[in-house]
Amino acid sequence: MKILLLAGDGIGPEIMAEAGKVLDALALPVTLDRALVGGAAYEASGHPLPPETLAKAKAADAILFGAVGDPRFDAVERHLRPEQAILGLRAELGLFANLRPAKLFPGLEDSSALRPEVASAIDLLIVRELNGDVYFGEKGTRTTASGEREGYDVMAYSESEVRRIAHVAFRAAQGRGKRLCSVDKANVLETSQLWRDVVIEVAAEYPDVALSHMYVDNAAMQLVRNPGQFDVIVTGNLFGDILSDQASMCVGSIGLLASASLGEGRRGLYEPIHGSAPDIAGKGIANPLAMILSLAMLLRHSGGDEANAARIEAAVGQVLADGCRGADLGGTMGTTALGDAVVSALN
Amino acid sequence: MKILLLAGDGIGPEIMAEAGKVLDALALPVTLDRALVGGAAYEASGHPLPPETLAKAKAADAILFGAVGDPRFDAVERHLRPEQAILGLRAELGLFANLRPAKLFPGLEDSSALRPEVASAIDLLIVRELNGDVYFGEKGTRTTASGEREGYDVMAYSESEVRRIAHVAFRAAQGRGKRLCSVDKANVLETSQLWRDVVIEVAAEYPDVALSHMYVDNAAMQLVRNPGQFDVIVTGNLFGDILSDQASMCVGSIGLLASASLGEGRRGLYEPIHGSAPDIAGKGIANPLAMILSLAMLLRHSGGDEANAARIEAAVGQVLADGCRGADLGGTMGTTALGDAVVSALN
Ligand SMILES: CC(C)[C@H](C(=O)O)[C@@H](O)C(=O)O
Ligand SMILES: CC(C)[C@H](C(=O)O)[C@@H](O)C(=O)O
Repeated sequence: MKILLLAGDGIGPEIMAEAGKVLDALALPVTLDRALVGGAAYEASGHPLPPETLAKAKAADAILFGAVGDPRFDAVERHLRPEQAILGLRAELGLFANLRPAKLFPGLEDSSALRPEVASAIDLLIVRELNGDVYFGEKGTRTTASGEREGYDVMAYSESEVRRIAHVAFRAAQGRGKRLCSVDKANVLETSQLWRDVVIEVAAEYPDVALSHMYVDNAAMQLVRNPGQFDVIVTGNLFGDILSDQASMCVGSIGLLASASLGEGRRGLYEPIHGSAPDIAGKGIANPLAMILSLAMLLRHSGGDEANAARIEAAVGQVLADGCRGADLGGTMGTTALGDAVVSALN
Repeated sequence: MKILLLAGDGIGPEIMAEAGKVLDALALPVTLDRALVGGAAYEASGHPLPPETLAKAKAADAILFGAVGDPRFDAVERHLRPEQAILGLRAELGLFANLRPAKLFPGLEDSSALRPEVASAIDLLIVRELNGDVYFGEKGTRTTASGEREGYDVMAYSESEVRRIAHVAFRAAQGRGKRLCSVDKANVLETSQLWRDVVIEVAAEYPDVALSHMYVDNAAMQLVRNPGQFDVIVTGNLFGDILSDQASMCVGSIGLLASASLGEGRRGLYEPIHGSAPDIAGKGIANPLAMILSLAMLLRHSGGDEANAARIEAAVGQVLADGCRGADLGGTMGTTALGDAVVSALN
């Protein structure tokens, strides 16, 4: 298996180093390559997703991705900003399905902002569409009839876009609790109405999965009130962005949640759901666990190596159960110490 | 003052009756009128916002609004659905500023899904833009080049739309903790970039207010992690819809949050942020407190009657401190009993 490591910006390189240690410790028959991405690539070459990086990504079986984003480039034209690298990879590689599992690790009952009994019930998977929605529609700044500037972005979903993500979500639900909640804003948005109609059509092929629908405002509320009610949530790119970050805090720290971005084949991109955290970059205090858990997802989905994926996840669980905590969880362990602890816990 | 009561659908009429009791008890020199709205109006007249209702709303100084929405009309064409009544009123009356305060009432520390120390720190105001965004842009279903159906909705904000809501938010912050957080998704959306640019321009006129910016995904996370960090949040129509529902659960129940929708003048529309709750309609168990608190906001903003607004709020606080709880808060008190309790607590 050819794995491309894209560390990116901010805390990206620090946490990637820890995932690299874990990968080394497993001594798997993989080929590793590296490339620049995000602000780091822009600085070196003038583009956040240089052609060489994209070519390497296309040639890889799996991509392990750190994070991109750097406020130093806030004033740069949008198409050259660090974030365009991850949006570009998702689009160019056809990675339309983003899987974001959220589950409370034993021992973290008191780390969530939610009451322990509410937090411990969390075991959900958010399936976020990743190639469409208001992220990728026509956008720009135009002048209105009255001569003012107006910013605009077109939100849209076509039938086939909804259908393929719906299939991913129904299949994921079949492998879990067999309950799927589709989140939209169909009372206001035509995009959501089409989404809902197509999800209902696809449901006919999955009679064993119980489908429900929820408006996004209600979903944001229910994720606080009683997140334990959800099994699989399927939603569009924008709502998925918001709800998955929200869910991450329910499990104690955004530093613990990994994600897989998948297309039609086996190739996937794996990244923590947190960002580049420029405020703590270089301090050696970033939590590498979401990055390490992203490696586990990589081995499972692109490598078909459930055994080693489960080994990594068990080691992370062990480390947390042993009370190892970084700054994000009120502890004092640094990035490398946490990575080392995971390596020692592998068995 | 001429007040129009629009009870609407579902639990609307039940909770409106309790607000009516409180208003009667205050014996204020107001003129009351009533009209049909939402599904109830559609059933009676074929339109969710009939011309007579709109005319009465325009003639009123303030509108007290229950809730609209009824799944019986889910298959009706979008422009005739119950929700169009509230969207139509907001647009026709130019009610562009939606104020949604969220604060934990003493005694409800254990009712929030958040840990008590996290929940008790909540005291924030969400200022949501209400006349623009993807709610009111061009929308519909079209056929793509490949012959598929595609749903679309245009998200947009013009300079003047952002400017006027920014002024409302900065002024609100001046009257509170002098901190304003503008929430957008400027790393992806051009609409957000314009939003951010204009908010920064307006900030120059309010040097006493500390302005910060946050991406909406991060804001959804921070509202769980540490909602006490926020004073005033200003955001667009869609993000405001999601974040304010989320915040409501942090304070224990969505049945406790009122909102004011204001335009340029003194006229306003006041409504609980919860919906019509068709599942519990007619059972006499809906929480009327958000509706009663909406009346308080009406007296304050449209009536300039701070004294009576504060009286109502104190009475509601008293009732909650006394341990009165409806089903939403795990108690057994019904809608009328809660309304009666507020009336008795008025002093
Ligand atoms: C960096 C940003 C463009 C990205 C997104 O909005 O998709 C991030 O928030 C995420 O969720 O992966
Ligand atoms: C009923 C619906 C159209 C409305 C909205 O989305 O604005 C509601 O959710 C609200 O927040 O007032």
